[in-house]
Amino acid sequence: MSMAARNFGIVCGILPTGEMNAITDVPGVRVGHHTIRDGDVNTGVTAILPHGGNLFRKKVLAASEVVNGFGKSAGLVQLDEIGTIETPILLTNTLSVGTCVTALVREAIAANPDIGRTTSTVNAVVGECNDGPLNDIQALAVTEEHVRLALADAHEGDVAEGNVGAGTGMTCFGFKGGIGTSSRRLALDGQDFHLGVLVLSNFGRVGDLVLPDGRRPDPRARNEAEKGSIMVVLATDVPMEHRQLKRVTRRCGAGIARLGAFWGHGSGDIAIGFTTGVTIDHDDSKDFFPMTALNEDRIDMLFRAATEATQEAILNSLCAAEAFRGRGGTKRASLADWLRQQG
Amino acid sequence: MSMAARNFGIVCGILPTGEMNAITDVPGVRVGHHTIRDGDVNTGVTAILPHGGNLFRKKVLAASEVVNGFGKSAGLVQLDEIGTIETPILLTNTLSVGTCVTALVREAIAANPDIGRTTSTVNAVVGECNDGPLNDIQALAVTEEHVRLALADAHEGDVAEGNVGAGTGMTCFGFKGGIGTSSRRLALDGQDFHLGVLVLSNFGRVGDLVLPDGRRPDPRARNEAEKGSIMVVLATDVPMEHRQLKRVTRRCGAGIARLGAFWGHGSGDIAIGFTTGVTIDHDDSKDFFPMTALNEDRIDMLFRAATEATQEAILNSLCAAEAFRGRGGTKRASLADWLRQQG
Amino acid sequence: MSMAARNFGIVCGILPTGEMNAITDVPGVRVGHHTIRDGDVNTGVTAILPHGGNLFRKKVLAASEVVNGFGKSAGLVQLDEIGTIETPILLTNTLSVGTCVTALVREAIAANPDIGRTTSTVNAVVGECNDGPLNDIQALAVTEEHVRLALADAHEGDVAEGNVGAGTGMTCFGFKGGIGTSSRRLALDGQDFHLGVLVLSNFGRVGDLVLPDGRRPDPRARNEAEKGSIMVVLATDVPMEHRQLKRVTRRCGAGIARLGAFWGHGSGDIAIGFTTGVTIDHDDSKDFFPMTALNEDRIDMLFRAATEATQEAILNSLCAAEAFRGRGGTKRASLADWLRQQG
Amino acid sequence: MSMAARNFGIVCGILPTGEMNAITDVPGVRVGHHTIRDGDVNTGVTAILPHGGNLFRKKVLAASEVVNGFGKSAGLVQLDEIGTIETPILLTNTLSVGTCVTALVREAIAANPDIGRTTSTVNAVVGECNDGPLNDIQALAVTEEHVRLALADAHEGDVAEGNVGAGTGMTCFGFKGGIGTSSRRLALDGQDFHLGVLVLSNFGRVGDLVLPDGRRPDPRARNEAEKGSIMVVLATDVPMEHRQLKRVTRRCGAGIARLGAFWGHGSGDIAIGFTTGVTIDHDDSKDFFPMTALNEDRIDMLFRAATEATQEAILNSLCAAEAFRGRGGTKRASLADWLRQQG
Repeated sequence: MSMAARNFGIVCGILPTGEMNAITDVPGVRVGHHTIRDGDVNTGVTAILPHGGNLFRKKVLAASEVVNGFGKSAGLVQLDEIGTIETPILLTNTLSVGTCVTALVREAIAANPDIGRTTSTVNAVVGECNDGPLNDIQALAVTEEHVRLALADAHEGDVAEGNVGAGTGMTCFGFKGGIGTSSRRLALDGQDFHLGVLVLSNFGRVGDLVLPDGRRPDPRARNEAEKGSIMVVLATDVPMEHRQLKRVTRRCGAGIARLGAFWGHGSGDIAIGFTTGVTIDHDDSKDFFPMTALNEDRIDMLFRAATEATQEAILNSLCAAEAFRGRGGTKRASLADWLRQQG
Repeated sequence: MSMAARNFGIVCGILPTGEMNAITDVPGVRVGHHTIRDGDVNTGVTAILPHGGNLFRKKVLAASEVVNGFGKSAGLVQLDEIGTIETPILLTNTLSVGTCVTALVREAIAANPDIGRTTSTVNAVVGECNDGPLNDIQALAVTEEHVRLALADAHEGDVAEGNVGAGTGMTCFGFKGGIGTSSRRLALDGQDFHLGVLVLSNFGRVGDLVLPDGRRPDPRARNEAEKGSIMVVLATDVPMEHRQLKRVTRRCGAGIARLGAFWGHGSGDIAIGFTTGVTIDHDDSKDFFPMTALNEDRIDMLFRAATEATQEAILNSLCAAEAFRGRGGTKRASLADWLRQQG
Repeated sequence: MSMAARNFGIVCGILPTGEMNAITDVPGVRVGHHTIRDGDVNTGVTAILPHGGNLFRKKVLAASEVVNGFGKSAGLVQLDEIGTIETPILLTNTLSVGTCVTALVREAIAANPDIGRTTSTVNAVVGECNDGPLNDIQALAVTEEHVRLALADAHEGDVAEGNVGAGTGMTCFGFKGGIGTSSRRLALDGQDFHLGVLVLSNFGRVGDLVLPDGRRPDPRARNEAEKGSIMVVLATDVPMEHRQLKRVTRRCGAGIARLGAFWGHGSGDIAIGFTTGVTIDHDDSKDFFPMTALNEDRIDMLFRAATEATQEAILNSLCAAEAFRGRGGTKRASLADWLRQQG
Repeated sequence: MSMAARNFGIVCGILPTGEMNAITDVPGVRVGHHTIRDGDVNTGVTAILPHGGNLFRKKVLAASEVVNGFGKSAGLVQLDEIGTIETPILLTNTLSVGTCVTALVREAIAANPDIGRTTSTVNAVVGECNDGPLNDIQALAVTEEHVRLALADAHEGDVAEGNVGAGTGMTCFGFKGGIGTSSRRLALDGQDFHLGVLVLSNFGRVGDLVLPDGRRPDPRARNEAEKGSIMVVLATDVPMEHRQLKRVTRRCGAGIARLGAFWGHGSGDIAIGFTTGVTIDHDDSKDFFPMTALNEDRIDMLFRAATEATQEAILNSLCAAEAFRGRGGTKRASLADWLRQQG
């Protein structure tokens, strides 16, 4: 079991977490990783599945927020126009987006032979960060087979964090970054709902990180321009309108800012949100369908949850990621080690 | 009864119109005008009410589309963030927007004494065009009392078109413009629905107007830079999500383009859409509320309706507006006269 | 002289401030206030002038960022389409926006008799927050004369902060809010440039405020839904493209988030940015004009400055605002008092 | 030499064309195609190069407009955030976007070995339409080698139109669509400038096409839901700001609408604009750079050019495309044949 921020007494905000403090606290959500470590190659693929069924046939409501658009994500234009996700969401390194798109297309065709024949095409959703400092990114090492392995690994329950999957070669505030997750439990209409976040953290200038208690961890690394990025995937089961989900997803940017970042120029800071509380049947033949919307006066609870869970997921990625030696021997310290030294 | 494009055999598109071919074919929608003509002052106020009740307490779903943002409309920021309209929509001349905002605020407070006390403030929605060439716009002639008269005039049924209300001093493609309306009937789920449009037409370069049959009416006027604008108000009773309504409202821009305009730099081309099919109770105490969304595969019908009705509403404004002599004797010809001369 | 965060040892970030640590460190920028206190009326007007000349004839490059659109600001649509500001920027209470728009229009006409005659109309820019809890906002107490007084008060140099002008009746994180300002000095191309921020702070839930050192000030006030807002005006003399300025202005949202806010639903969080480094001559007759753009690789410096200055301007508003008794005797504590008690 | 609309006396608008009436009238712009026809495979790749040099090192100013976002284009998020294009623009079929992205990445690395090492990564720009009805799109027939062949074919001068490159299997208003181009000549500051458009036309419902003279060509084909798309690439050498270019690019949507389309739900209608009049040096070490901006009062000329050239480029694609028999023998008629029959 990897370390988390709460193991060091670090808590973000006031809302209760879900049982696992993970994106998988949202019922049905699955996460899978495939890690690639081979000499100077330190990269991988992470897959987030909104549910275990056929996503093309049973789409989920989705929205994105481009906090800073220095990024090469695929699929966002259609995601916001139509308001749905119809493939797994993949995370990988910047130069492997094309391969991941093609792999998702092939998987979708295999499961839905009518794609591009008697029905529409498919919109693949892929996010990325640049792991070039620790990974031989020019090798374009991710293959379609690696994508299939990440998809095959997807499961409910525990989420591996830190130097795993797409997080293998990432850097955050000069420390080793990578995959992190967190969640919040929300009481609405007498029921328990959840909002969970998974991040691929690869952003932040050395020296800018601020912990919730005001401490400023120093990795004793050289200060370089922020050329990283962060991908945030937000999941919930609270039913709502697309416009409401887009507002909620926007708050991931507040969670990033609370840690001391200013959404740097070279950092592709992008959040993708979905709710399993509204599904859209690809083959629906009726003119209308009933849906449930959130009373907007309750949305602050979700705004708070999105902000807190993003902040904590990033800290979890930093606490889970162990010290690392990457391409050409480049080293990254672990925030967990720094926190242990602080006592 | 004023002239309409169909009186001259001009038809836009293929969908059937509503009974009155007016925005008021959408059940509950009301339109009122107050016309001000006094020497060089030729202006007014037009009010569109989504329903006859208290709009602040029972808001309607709304969305806007800024086709070209050289405009001074009020209320659009909140309209799109929250997705609702909570006051009547007023149309007027550019420099009278402030007065109209204040008048709407005062009306809302009178009907809802809790505004700014125990509940939130109110978002006034006002659109405008520049009638300066025919109106002494520097006179700021519109008063709060004029707004109250326009609101008092609001009624279901027939809509006065042409040189009336906010349309009194407007110019379109060099002809006299003003108020026009049109609607389309839509069959969904075994029921009749409607989509209606009301325009305040004040845009278009002399010589650019193209009729659906390819004719290019010439007002024999001097060619000037497009410094006008068009406000489009789109109403429907089809229930749908905010995102869907925003997509529908966007198609008003296609209707404008079909007439030969290219959304000129100095023209504030703005559309405001609402649907009475989704209402939001200001005092709702439940966490969720049920709503009906449109199967997105049916939305082309609404796109077509928005395009056709916008195009036809503009032509109706041109056909209804009689030849006019405005500020300093400036004249505008009537498209109806041009069409009559064509035989 | 009012208190500032630095008087209590509170510093935001690492960049040096300008000489006055105020928006007026940007050469030419002027600020004026008119405060209205009369029984239950506690409100006012604040004016920010990009320069001392005729703004309609010599416009400045401008951009806005709607962090959360529950707001009734005027003029943003055209500001972003055309990329200019051509009037002073006014700040006031929510229900007085209409009056401020009309006052700006009248001032513009007086200085430019060709408006709406031989040239275009004018786009008035007004921001607002809801001071209802401390001000009898239903009184619509702001008059056009009050606007003229605020404009007449505008001057370079010291900026009054706290309970002044539009800030008179504002509340922030449960403490007394209001007007605050801060600036950063930037070295570019061997010269000194500045980026300054002025805020009207009226946002934040009780208990959410976090100081840069991790302390969480508690005003011992009742926790209510965030129904406030914040207006941020950002000024700089760094020349750049509109797109670049929009990116810079967006970072004001990061500064707000760093203080613990999550951009609440009912909070109209809006930033308006301008640069005196690019002016647009209304009467320019040439087809092209030369401008200077920023090397995008340097923009992180401005992102950091916008974030830090926004955060500090808010804290300055809180430190400058003295404890207050408003409408119906409602009290607000002063953060300065809380800090003094902490020793 | 293929047919063009003007061969049939069809003219769009009033501005003069460039010498070739092609996107390559903009000096330096190159177009290349690779056509793939093999049994049921009828597809290809089209490449547009803003200039003949290293695009990563010498980027051009760019902007995009998503008219309707049911599309899977790559690279738009960064294109609009940073305002540049740094690779060739590729057009292809929907499911081959991933392969084209990867090919562009590999080409960029080959020419710039510092990518992902000592400098940033690269943003590949790829547009697409769904040629499924005429092409075995599930075959994912486009390879990286095909991309290299299209790039190798890129040249100044004549542009092949119709059933070529990415246009091989496209359908437009029920007729055979494909590649089309058109341009306009613009006199500014005593010089000749150009604005050119290249389209990949694959949109429009049977029966909706309207010619500029009002005729409505009928391909006698079955009416199906609009599941096509259109990609528009707009090039100019007029120097301007990013915001101005985005406004110009937006007018491509007006050109589409003039032909009778309403930007159908299933149609990814996307325009990408660039100007060679502003280039950005990747290795620039200065803090500022001089650029030339357009006097906004002149921008209507470019709006008109974008609208007219888009409309005419689409008609040219329809006139150049010969009748076609595609996957499974599916036929498409030629608009040129229909026009010939009209006499």
